[in-house]
Amino acid sequence: MSTQQRTGDTIRFSEPPSIVEFGAVGGKKEGQGPLAAQFDLLFEENTFGEETWEKAESRLQRHCLDLTLKKAHCKPEQVNLLLGGDLQNQCTATAYTMRNVDVPFAGLYGACSTMAEAVGLAACFTAGGFADTVAALTSSHFCAAERQFRTPLTYGAKRTPTAQWTATASGCCIVKPQGDGPYVKAVTFGRVRDYEICDINNMGAAMAPAAAETILRYCADTGRTPADFDAVYTGDLGIVGSRLLAELLKKEGVALHNHKDCGLLLYDIDTQEVQAGGSGAGCSASVLAAHVLPMLRRKEHNRVLFLSTGALMSQITFLQGESIPGVAHLLELSSQREG
Amino acid sequence: MSTQQRTGDTIRFSEPPSIVEFGAVGGKKEGQGPLAAQFDLLFEENTFGEETWEKAESRLQRHCLDLTLKKAHCKPEQVNLLLGGDLQNQCTATAYTMRNVDVPFAGLYGACSTMAEAVGLAACFTAGGFADTVAALTSSHFCAAERQFRTPLTYGAKRTPTAQWTATASGCCIVKPQGDGPYVKAVTFGRVRDYEICDINNMGAAMAPAAAETILRYCADTGRTPADFDAVYTGDLGIVGSRLLAELLKKEGVALHNHKDCGLLLYDIDTQEVQAGGSGAGCSASVLAAHVLPMLRRKEHNRVLFLSTGALMSQITFLQGESIPGVAHLLELSSQREG
Repeated sequence: MSTQQRTGDTIRFSEPPSIVEFGAVGGKKEGQGPLAAQFDLLFEENTFGEETWEKAESRLQRHCLDLTLKKAHCKPEQVNLLLGGDLQNQCTATAYTMRNVDVPFAGLYGACSTMAEAVGLAACFTAGGFADTVAALTSSHFCAAERQFRTPLTYGAKRTPTAQWTATASGCCIVKPQGDGPYVKAVTFGRVRDYEICDINNMGAAMAPAAAETILRYCADTGRTPADFDAVYTGDLGIVGSRLLAELLKKEGVALHNHKDCGLLLYDIDTQEVQAGGSGAGCSASVLAAHVLPMLRRKEHNRVLFLSTGALMSQITFLQGESIPGVAHLLELSSQREG
Repeated sequence: MSTQQRTGDTIRFSEPPSIVEFGAVGGKKEGQGPLAAQFDLLFEENTFGEETWEKAESRLQRHCLDLTLKKAHCKPEQVNLLLGGDLQNQCTATAYTMRNVDVPFAGLYGACSTMAEAVGLAACFTAGGFADTVAALTSSHFCAAERQFRTPLTYGAKRTPTAQWTATASGCCIVKPQGDGPYVKAVTFGRVRDYEICDINNMGAAMAPAAAETILRYCADTGRTPADFDAVYTGDLGIVGSRLLAELLKKEGVALHNHKDCGLLLYDIDTQEVQAGGSGAGCSASVLAAHVLPMLRRKEHNRVLFLSTGALMSQITFLQGESIPGVAHLLELSSQREG
């Protein structure tokens, strides 16, 4: 195994690991959105047959993990490590999924940035020779998240135009040291940034500075620009955060003409009443697995940057009047191993 | 770089990374306990000069990170990645620490198992050639944890004999690919185990099966037994969980004569009114940094097994009547690089 290359915050793999399989599962609203046909599995009921929203989210994750392993012709006992997380307090959606999955488990918390974090760590873990097969799994559930971060659904609270809609969705990736791709060429783990946004209903604005920071660092580390890629995906800045990201990059002399946001791809914001767009740890995860990776596999994309963005607040920090720190992790993904 | 060895769930490093420096900071009760003299820094007031318990925990972490970096003669800009977490909802203690620390950050959640998870991932990250310097940082705060998981302190709730006392403490380790040790020789990431314990005041019993499982897997993977080590440290099973661990291992034919639990080392349970012992993501972290690693450095220990154990429930899963899943991650630590 040859030596990895690190420049600044960016790790470039000398032998890029492969995301050999991926799967996406969604709920009712996701099944009414523009990406519906690209999901592996959709449910009409967001209970997924369970009694509570919290258990429903674990069930959703389990469906996603099971079908992705099946697609990969991989048995659970062949998975060396599962890296995953969710938005529930103490990440219980994932912990409760894993008590029925007999696989070593390292829990992550990066809010909505968790999928890029998980795939990035999985890529390092496999490229470093520590595992043959690593699974990355995240989810979010609208009803569990609303109660926890804002108010229970039954209160019927009015949503502001800058609010984002937590996706009821899960995404899973199986990462191996070798394979037919798509390939993880590079990873940039992000730094926490706080622009002193205190509005829990404007998370796009809170996360955009972190996304800008990570993109700028990747560009500085590699000498590349967003124009070198077929697309730059972010998850989940929504309308407000996406505009702010373009402005922040423009100020630094970086044009962003090929930007797509997972929160704006998952829903039709004109008709689906999701306000500024989708969000949640399952949003970028499911868009990655349902839309981005398939385009790379079909060679409709050659290479892309993919960032998951996370707002790192809690209900308590919000009630204490704290601002919202953001973080964004970046993956350079390619349809080809070389070049 | 030579190839790593994986057998079963256990990764053995061909070139073991080094924990080049470590630091521990504690609060008032920790400063009255048996390990007080071994802490780097102790505070009389658990507010650490802040207005809220949540901010106090971030301040505690910051003290721990700063002093550990200073001991290591390492500037923040030399740290390639910080892996860390805590018990607060959405891991905000760590996230809010990191908004003032300009270092790439990957958030973890493993409840009280987070320190072994963080050091284990840091060891892989450095041994794999992805970083020169990785920091592992975790904490817990009694007052923040009591309000969140049980009741606010001002309610004056009576504690049961099986309850554990969440440590107000933080531990930090700086991991590098080379160094003078102590060395991380092997890592076993644990599987989630649920023995259907539903008592949130008996977490030792909930976590012991996971600890037993991970120890047994490590033994099966390596052909070693606990008797091959100077000590087997667990964090934080307390009295109840420690007894159960010994029983569970005995049933499998494994004797455990050299077991020490971080939750029982940190406090004098006869005089300090901590019920069954200490717990919290800062408990095993601070005992590792204040006590275990210094003993390895002074060659008073030659080699030890160190496990952090986590109870993966939340207040919501508890109120919904769910049982408590546990997980335990294992580190094989040695004073010497070879052998």
